[in-house]
Amino acid sequence: MEKFEVHILGCGSALPTTRHYPTSQVVNIREKLYMIDCGEGAQMQLRRSRLKFSRLNHIFISHLHGDHCFGIIGLISTFALLGRTATLHIHAHKELEKLMRPWLDFFCHGISFDVEFHPFSGKGPEIIHEDRSVTVSTIPLKHRVPCCGFLFAEKQTPDHIIREMIDFYQIPTYELNRIKNGGDYTTPDGDIIPHDRLTIPSAAPRKYAYCSDTIYLPENTSLLQDVDLLFHEATFASDNEVRAKETFHTTARQAASFALEAKARQLVIGHFSARYEDEGILLKEAKEIFPNTILAKENLCINIPTAGIQNLKE
Amino acid sequence: MEKFEVHILGCGSALPTTRHYPTSQVVNIREKLYMIDCGEGAQMQLRRSRLKFSRLNHIFISHLHGDHCFGIIGLISTFALLGRTATLHIHAHKELEKLMRPWLDFFCHGISFDVEFHPFSGKGPEIIHEDRSVTVSTIPLKHRVPCCGFLFAEKQTPDHIIREMIDFYQIPTYELNRIKNGGDYTTPDGDIIPHDRLTIPSAAPRKYAYCSDTIYLPENTSLLQDVDLLFHEATFASDNEVRAKETFHTTARQAASFALEAKARQLVIGHFSARYEDEGILLKEAKEIFPNTILAKENLCINIPTAGIQNLKE
Repeated sequence: MEKFEVHILGCGSALPTTRHYPTSQVVNIREKLYMIDCGEGAQMQLRRSRLKFSRLNHIFISHLHGDHCFGIIGLISTFALLGRTATLHIHAHKELEKLMRPWLDFFCHGISFDVEFHPFSGKGPEIIHEDRSVTVSTIPLKHRVPCCGFLFAEKQTPDHIIREMIDFYQIPTYELNRIKNGGDYTTPDGDIIPHDRLTIPSAAPRKYAYCSDTIYLPENTSLLQDVDLLFHEATFASDNEVRAKETFHTTARQAASFALEAKARQLVIGHFSARYEDEGILLKEAKEIFPNTILAKENLCINIPTAGIQNLKE
Repeated sequence: MEKFEVHILGCGSALPTTRHYPTSQVVNIREKLYMIDCGEGAQMQLRRSRLKFSRLNHIFISHLHGDHCFGIIGLISTFALLGRTATLHIHAHKELEKLMRPWLDFFCHGISFDVEFHPFSGKGPEIIHEDRSVTVSTIPLKHRVPCCGFLFAEKQTPDHIIREMIDFYQIPTYELNRIKNGGDYTTPDGDIIPHDRLTIPSAAPRKYAYCSDTIYLPENTSLLQDVDLLFHEATFASDNEVRAKETFHTTARQAASFALEAKARQLVIGHFSARYEDEGILLKEAKEIFPNTILAKENLCINIPTAGIQNLKE
């Protein structure tokens, strides 16, 4: 199975505590790393995760509150010290580049790689990055400042060749890629061997959705139907539902309702308010509505299995 | 004894590791807190230190490398979330304000307190802050960018009244402050009771010197004679003496020679290069020259005792 993992680097909210770093995650898809948000200390947590810095080329910033982006400048400085050469791509609302450039010019003058900013509007669902493994789209969210989530959709992988059938029909090697990608095989005698006899279907592509920070937005569930893993912020428990609404955040119960409505396979909640010393109350509340919920925590790695395979957590 | 403590929040160098945060310290003098440098994550470490955020009004930045100042913006944001009202004073080279202002305007717009920048040249020894408890002066250092250390000199406290003598001579209360501060007492009969008979001398004022980052600068020892506690950077061991010079850093042996020459009472070394997994080699090397050396480490609190009292470490 191709790797598709989510590493939680930090899952606290605006006020850092001794328990939580501010928000940052890394999505590992087939050993390519995509960072989502980059709060203060993200680089320290990235080092703890033992993920390879050099495999990280894209950073996606949900919104321009400090707890989601103050770690970028330190991460870039460290990349420079490590002699990075590959361009680093930062996908964010347009104001970020204007803020970062003077700091990069001053603190990272003459570094060995380029930092490219890719502004997005974030107002609707929009593909903002695509490569051989994945498409990344924005998810429109509603917070106190412009904000969006991100949907990571794995691309379909080719079907798996059945070696014995290839040998049996003596199919030449140059035909294999075509067959893996859906083609039939025509023998020298003109017989057609259908694709389905020669291959085992590849696993269904997986999807990971990241929704933080936002007021409860059930209308987004249609965008995220059947997502394999949903990270949803759950800053508050239901006892603070009014406060959640006022501050444009979500309660654990609302996050679970969202997961249920979206028919997500698994929910992970995070972005915990500093007021909850024990986040068990948030988990309990979410599980009552959506049993397959887990709490985010620092250095948790969540594997997204292909359909039918049991999830593994470290 | 009046409190005079140094809390190490971070003692790594430019490249954060899983063992060390970048540089930051807090000096606690009579429950007033003075921060020296503010690397990424300083606010998390400040919280771990259990020092009261509200008692911190002054931050001193030695130089504008990221590992000494990237934590400021996060710290200020957190102060704002906590409803701080007191002005925060930042003492630094003049370029810092220009860099920080656009970030403060964007991320900390409308916060409940002022941030005042106090630029210094750092080129010579100069008093840059003074209050009832302490004077803070710059120590000229030589690094790849303009850089200076800081000398915290406790002010002399009044002498202690001998209660029995006051009672014996029936000295009125309104005379006491004058006597504590050096005055004699004249009885109603005109007899003069000398200050020395009425008081016990207060302890000698203590001094703490912070020297980081810098090439080995023995000429500074004359400025820092008899300092009670000296923090000196020791980025490298002697095996990297050439590299230390090239990068304008100091070796542990050089730091110890400096302490010896300055007749410091105690030396604490820090700003360790990430290459030393075990800093024992740095400590060993320093102790050969200056036995009363300790290694900085995160969350270490070093008490500076008055002369003649044994130092306590937590």
